[in-house]
Amino acid sequence: MHRSRLTAALVDVPEEHYRSVIAFWSGAFGVEAEVDDEDPDYASVGQPIPGLQFMVQRVDAPSRIHLDIETDDIDAEVERLETLGAERVEKIESWWVMRDPAGVLFCVVRVQDPEAFARDARTWQ
Amino acid sequence: MHRSRLTAALVDVPEEHYRSVIAFWSGAFGVEAEVDDEDPDYASVGQPIPGLQFMVQRVDAPSRIHLDIETDDIDAEVERLETLGAERVEKIESWWVMRDPAGVLFCVVRVQDPEAFARDARTWQ
Repeated sequence: MHRSRLTAALVDVPEEHYRSVIAFWSGAFGVEAEVDDEDPDYASVGQPIPGLQFMVQRVDAPSRIHLDIETDDIDAEVERLETLGAERVEKIESWWVMRDPAGVLFCVVRVQDPEAFARDARTWQ
Repeated sequence: MHRSRLTAALVDVPEEHYRSVIAFWSGAFGVEAEVDDEDPDYASVGQPIPGLQFMVQRVDAPSRIHLDIETDDIDAEVERLETLGAERVEKIESWWVMRDPAGVLFCVVRVQDPEAFARDARTWQ
């Protein structure tokens, strides 16, 4: 038995757009953006909807949006999502990058928001 | 003075992936998907986070995720977002398709979720 929930939406952009995209979404939602001290490739843009973390990520790839699913059992959640039709792309540190049946990337990550997770995560047998 | 909030995330996929992607995200979030009776290019996949509508859209374009911002004044919101660095792409029926400074598409739409809008929308002067 394990649990999971949608936890984040990330706008992934190459270096040349990183600052302007952080400024744009920060203004769009009216929240202060904060570049991560420990990993400056990530900037937090608050929670435009309570329980949904919004981030901008600097990537070496074309611009896109991806979603993060948080879980208390990454292996079990990745297997469950494979059974539903997703494919593994690569494991990076603690998380898995996957793609849905149309090739849309998403990540399966450790619990990021314990309070929302405790309240809203679904339980899978 | 007008108001706006993030209201939806949509997975846009071409025809050949439409059914499998609906089934995938429906299973991923554990909710029943419903293809829109009036417009079968849209399928609702519930609210994986309260206040965030999740949809799959059939498009004639490469697969991607886009976001919808709902507002009580589309013209004013589109102008506000332009000032922040977004560009207009096209107006479709009542809504505007825009792109952020990195080219990521999003839409500015009429209020979709009146209850969440009344509770959580930001006010812009």
